[in-house]
Amino acid sequence: MKAEIIAVGTELLLGQIVNTNAQFLSQELAALGVDVYFQTVVGDNAGRLRQAIEVARSRADLLVFTGGLGPTQDDLTKDVLAAYLNKPLVLHQPSMDKIEQLFSSRGTHMVESNRRQALMIEGSTPLANSAGLAVGIGLSEDGTHYMLLPGPPREMRPMMEGPGKAWIQHITGQTEPLFSRQLKFAGIGESNLEAALLDLIDGQTDPTIAPYAKEGEVAVRVSTKAPTEAEAAMKIDATVDKIKERVGEFLYAQEDIPLEEAVVRLLRASRRKLASAESCTGGLFAEYITSIPGSSGEYSGGVVTYTNEMKHKMLGIPMEQLEGEGAPGAISESTAALMAERILQIADTDFGVSLTGVAGPSESEGKPVGLVYFAVAERGKETRVFTSKFSGSREIIRVRAVKAALYRLWQTLASAE
Amino acid sequence: MKAEIIAVGTELLLGQIVNTNAQFLSQELAALGVDVYFQTVVGDNAGRLRQAIEVARSRADLLVFTGGLGPTQDDLTKDVLAAYLNKPLVLHQPSMDKIEQLFSSRGTHMVESNRRQALMIEGSTPLANSAGLAVGIGLSEDGTHYMLLPGPPREMRPMMEGPGKAWIQHITGQTEPLFSRQLKFAGIGESNLEAALLDLIDGQTDPTIAPYAKEGEVAVRVSTKAPTEAEAAMKIDATVDKIKERVGEFLYAQEDIPLEEAVVRLLRASRRKLASAESCTGGLFAEYITSIPGSSGEYSGGVVTYTNEMKHKMLGIPMEQLEGEGAPGAISESTAALMAERILQIADTDFGVSLTGVAGPSESEGKPVGLVYFAVAERGKETRVFTSKFSGSREIIRVRAVKAALYRLWQTLASAE
Repeated sequence: MKAEIIAVGTELLLGQIVNTNAQFLSQELAALGVDVYFQTVVGDNAGRLRQAIEVARSRADLLVFTGGLGPTQDDLTKDVLAAYLNKPLVLHQPSMDKIEQLFSSRGTHMVESNRRQALMIEGSTPLANSAGLAVGIGLSEDGTHYMLLPGPPREMRPMMEGPGKAWIQHITGQTEPLFSRQLKFAGIGESNLEAALLDLIDGQTDPTIAPYAKEGEVAVRVSTKAPTEAEAAMKIDATVDKIKERVGEFLYAQEDIPLEEAVVRLLRASRRKLASAESCTGGLFAEYITSIPGSSGEYSGGVVTYTNEMKHKMLGIPMEQLEGEGAPGAISESTAALMAERILQIADTDFGVSLTGVAGPSESEGKPVGLVYFAVAERGKETRVFTSKFSGSREIIRVRAVKAALYRLWQTLASAE
Repeated sequence: MKAEIIAVGTELLLGQIVNTNAQFLSQELAALGVDVYFQTVVGDNAGRLRQAIEVARSRADLLVFTGGLGPTQDDLTKDVLAAYLNKPLVLHQPSMDKIEQLFSSRGTHMVESNRRQALMIEGSTPLANSAGLAVGIGLSEDGTHYMLLPGPPREMRPMMEGPGKAWIQHITGQTEPLFSRQLKFAGIGESNLEAALLDLIDGQTDPTIAPYAKEGEVAVRVSTKAPTEAEAAMKIDATVDKIKERVGEFLYAQEDIPLEEAVVRLLRASRRKLASAESCTGGLFAEYITSIPGSSGEYSGGVVTYTNEMKHKMLGIPMEQLEGEGAPGAISESTAALMAERILQIADTDFGVSLTGVAGPSESEGKPVGLVYFAVAERGKETRVFTSKFSGSREIIRVRAVKAALYRLWQTLASAE
């Protein structure tokens, strides 16, 4: 099956946002065995959107739209496709109920335009939106398949991964369904991982092995077609064993979970608790951990001590450690160790993790941008301190530092299992 | 002039990289007053690239290619366009000299395929590559203009900003460039904002007014063409005044900055300091504030008190307030107020912001998912507490809660100005 991705939105044509949706959808479609031959971006304009549909229909069997399902006058995708196919728009009552419920729970009045988000093209399959109000659509007509997804990635991604994927598997009628397993790695870069697996990636045709970077982590997708899940699992297991022989120490999960979730699970399994003390990462470590539902059982809390005064007040670190002639300074191995140990004591947890460094854009305490000290303190054990020099923007340095600290914590927990 | 951007590369269709080139080129072309109506991505395949050229020619005057100018067999853009236009490829001697020089300076032998990077289509204008070997091309033929740029951003960007821009100014003659201003709003949803501005949006043709949602905030872009920036600013100012009359209280910036940056700027301007105490948002408020470079001058730090014990230990909130028969509980107006007041005292800052609530996925203390209490404490003033019921996933609830607290803090700072 040949697919074309059509992203709808004038903000893309003006360069105000980058088309990450096309990348995500390309990966998902590739994993489903669907070939993407073209990606198109078109603005919020009925005439040109219709033109894009005509062109795409002539060269693809499956048109995957993203964007233009919202409540505003700019959101035209459903209207234009309905007119093109000469079909009416009909109300999807469950979506309408959801919208009305939301507004009444807020105690506010529904703006009439919100009704638009519950409309479907007659004869289409609804694709539920777990993260927003606009219902998605799957529709097959005259041998062409149309899938309409919302534009905001937070809504589009779960819709594609859930009902969207199921609908594509249905229309492709794969007798041998495709089974995939994601292997998630941390503590190793994408190019090093790929170099270690290069001959496997090139030589292996079934299962296939495809690495890709994923928000500060690296993933490898192992895919095969098989009549049953059990048979697929056997084939995939054999390939995973080969991969483990080479880079097993960096493999933290055989499913698509972020590193922080693997950490929270190991804490839960060993009934241990964590606290954090952050400087340069400004709360990002805490935010990653608490993004995992139910993490309050494993994470007691922490501090963001962005100034020396706060490191002193909140953690009791002596000012002589932080400032003055000959002091190690806030950005040092010994301060990282103290921060981790103090938060462990104060919060009375089993682990304390700390991060202190230079996120940039300019150097600090004479230390270069990207230099980060981080520590893992464990009750009754010697504190381990790590030093890394990360590259990239302020944002990327912060993410990489947090992931590096999470990796060391994961390692400690995993080796104790 | 109508333009289409054509990015060439199978890695884009597989989702291995994200198409940042399209974003960059869209911004550059908009600044040159060229309307981008479509962006297309096509793989390294001669037949499909030719198809893409045919389609683009039918709907655009200027085709801007990026990618496929390198030395390998996959790099087809020049060959395919030359064949399509029925023109021969000719050697660009200065580029060839540069390639040979490079290889001789390295003391290595030039691989024959590198010669391909010095080829031009007969009759075209060379666009010098200051950061690489492949020469770019500008070519006008039968009323259509073609610009060929390399794929690697570090080569493509300077080529576009230098010789590419000059060539486009040459082919467009004297057009009036487009000027835009972004208005950023918080504390109001996209549909409510649009409802308030609907007649303006529909009636206004110059400047144009276009609203769009942007990562938990709402933006409105006001655009006009004018001979000079000063004339554009006058026209845009008049439109902004009309918008302000209706929704001025929600307008936090007339440029594309996030709400947290507007907050940090107001703190800086008034030389005041902030601290935070978070429960349900788990460090996200701190992370947003500290994502702004240099915010350590305005943000002292804060705590993530994810358990009642931590609220007691770190903030000194009495356990009777948090637990037991008749206690208000951790998720309450009075606890939100206490958290904000205590962190202000402990950190000795001018403002303390707190958040406590239910991010989900399940209810807590018998309170529903999405219910969040947040408070802004100000030195010497009465603490203000707010209650909101947010909808969406755990992640979205956390983002919306943080943005709501930032909005209330911004309001306090802005009204004191």
